[in-house]
Amino acid sequence: MQIEEHLGSPRSAWTSGRGEMADVVVSSRSRLARNLEGFAFPGRLTSEIATQVLGRVQGAVQGFGSGWSFVKLSELSAVDRQVLVEKHLISPQQMQAPEQAALAVRDDEGLSLMVNEEDHLRLQAFRPGLAVRETLDEALRADDQLEETLDYAFTPELGYLTACPTNVGTGLRISVMLHLGGLVRTRGIAQLLQVLPKLGLAVRGLYGEGTEAAGDLFQISNQITLGQTEEEVAAAIERAAQQIIDQERAARRMLKEQALQQTQDRVYRAFGVLRYAQLLGGEEAMQLLSELRLGVEMGMLQVSPEVVNEMLVTALPGFLTRTMGHDLQTLEERAARARLIRERLQKEGI
Amino acid sequence: MQIEEHLGSPRSAWTSGRGEMADVVVSSRSRLARNLEGFAFPGRLTSEIATQVLGRVQGAVQGFGSGWSFVKLSELSAVDRQVLVEKHLISPQQMQAPEQAALAVRDDEGLSLMVNEEDHLRLQAFRPGLAVRETLDEALRADDQLEETLDYAFTPELGYLTACPTNVGTGLRISVMLHLGGLVRTRGIAQLLQVLPKLGLAVRGLYGEGTEAAGDLFQISNQITLGQTEEEVAAAIERAAQQIIDQERAARRMLKEQALQQTQDRVYRAFGVLRYAQLLGGEEAMQLLSELRLGVEMGMLQVSPEVVNEMLVTALPGFLTRTMGHDLQTLEERAARARLIRERLQKEGI
Repeated sequence: MQIEEHLGSPRSAWTSGRGEMADVVVSSRSRLARNLEGFAFPGRLTSEIATQVLGRVQGAVQGFGSGWSFVKLSELSAVDRQVLVEKHLISPQQMQAPEQAALAVRDDEGLSLMVNEEDHLRLQAFRPGLAVRETLDEALRADDQLEETLDYAFTPELGYLTACPTNVGTGLRISVMLHLGGLVRTRGIAQLLQVLPKLGLAVRGLYGEGTEAAGDLFQISNQITLGQTEEEVAAAIERAAQQIIDQERAARRMLKEQALQQTQDRVYRAFGVLRYAQLLGGEEAMQLLSELRLGVEMGMLQVSPEVVNEMLVTALPGFLTRTMGHDLQTLEERAARARLIRERLQKEGI
Repeated sequence: MQIEEHLGSPRSAWTSGRGEMADVVVSSRSRLARNLEGFAFPGRLTSEIATQVLGRVQGAVQGFGSGWSFVKLSELSAVDRQVLVEKHLISPQQMQAPEQAALAVRDDEGLSLMVNEEDHLRLQAFRPGLAVRETLDEALRADDQLEETLDYAFTPELGYLTACPTNVGTGLRISVMLHLGGLVRTRGIAQLLQVLPKLGLAVRGLYGEGTEAAGDLFQISNQITLGQTEEEVAAAIERAAQQIIDQERAARRMLKEQALQQTQDRVYRAFGVLRYAQLLGGEEAMQLLSELRLGVEMGMLQVSPEVVNEMLVTALPGFLTRTMGHDLQTLEERAARARLIRERLQKEGI
């Protein structure tokens, strides 16, 4: 598969809407940070040495066999890099500093590697729904395979060494993306957001650190990578996710019992606007898609969650610009977003 | 036709959406105020004498032949009387004081008589579109016919005598109902509303004196009834209407040239919300129907104007309560309004 195909499709490993607890959990991700022994961290690498790192990782990735694409980010346009961020294949940071950075991605986008980002190597496994252990297993298996070729920076005392001390140890960051539409609407979200950091969990928006929880999507991840085994981290995230799922479901039951008509009204209005608007701003689209998602999750509306996820990606500025083939003025961008969403819903025959 | 059928249907003489200049003019109406010679005006009538007046008018109406209903307002529920107001068959004033008041209405609702309102007799002819002369001719013909039986209070100096001095003379009030969605959106409406009174024209809302211009519907009527012939009044109203129509069309051209996408967006969003909302307040419904109407008038949307008019009547509180068969709590009213509008659009296959 060519990188072009990844860039052109709103589908990704996490967009199918299937999996466990898919009424609350959009996706699960396990990410391992690794660095090569004998090389400075990327932030201190000369271009020449970075090229060597790139070569080694690319060689190791070939061990994964066919069904993978490998692309140097410097060969992509800024818009293409933005699309990769929007599909969660690279980080916003990597988008900004692409010189020696690269991406290796499996055809289904369920497994991918960022090269020469903050660390030499960031391996991530993505799945829809609650699949913490599955993504961890997949990431660790891929990691083992890479380790057959690559020599990682590792000490028995600290574990894997990473550019940022917050990743030292397991180098593992597990995150789950949750749609907390019920808790946002019943105002239970504020308390939850206060409690999670005390449990060693970070809460972030759709695109990780520093991004807002647009569309009521919250990313919960572990803050600690040192002094806990991978299994312990996975168990903690799973436990936390299950508790949040319970709270979210309780919030939805409360909506059903105490504000059924108002909730249905918001869901169906959102559908009506998405189905017919001719201009749609990015923020409004996210908000409407969240209403729609909640309606789907609560069984009020027959739209597949996959369609909701694909519309979400479609509505993002990078993907939109790429689809249109040129930079967009505000009005044009709003018109394109509305048209693509409209057409997607029409295509579903609804 | 029974009064029950009038009460149960949102259709009326003015709702067909046809007629001249129907892209701006919803309807035209000519109303004649008349009083019987030898009787005090209704405000000073005893119940007994009022009953005599009622009997005489009822007798005269029988001269119109079949195809008419006659009903004493005291025999109707408050909700039924409200529906008659909403269909423009009686005035809001008459709704409040129904004791000896009555309504005679032709099956098509294009001609009707209020009895013992402010005057003994108010005869009105209604038509869709711009039809000032047609409604005047029809009202005058009916008036002539009634005069074969009834003896009107009339002096050669003043003309027809009426309870309120503002009606003395011809007793004629001609009004046209205009949808000025373009002028409201381009802010040209403010100037127009300042100019009209200087031309001897009154501007009122959907339900006449003291009502607001909900849904961007404005009623323009003559203020003067004395010292002008009926023909002069009709010519003045027609001239004014034609000028306002020109201005409104110019405003719509401006919207098309300078804000086409924004206008289409508002129209289609309104359609989407009307088509899918589960709860709709009365004011919001009027506003959304105005957007929809503008879209229909500007050729952006394939909905028949008749459907828009019928939805407007359907959404009004009296009609809604009657349809549901009992007094409605706020939430129930909003749910019923949304459902009836939704079903009407579904029925159209859109």
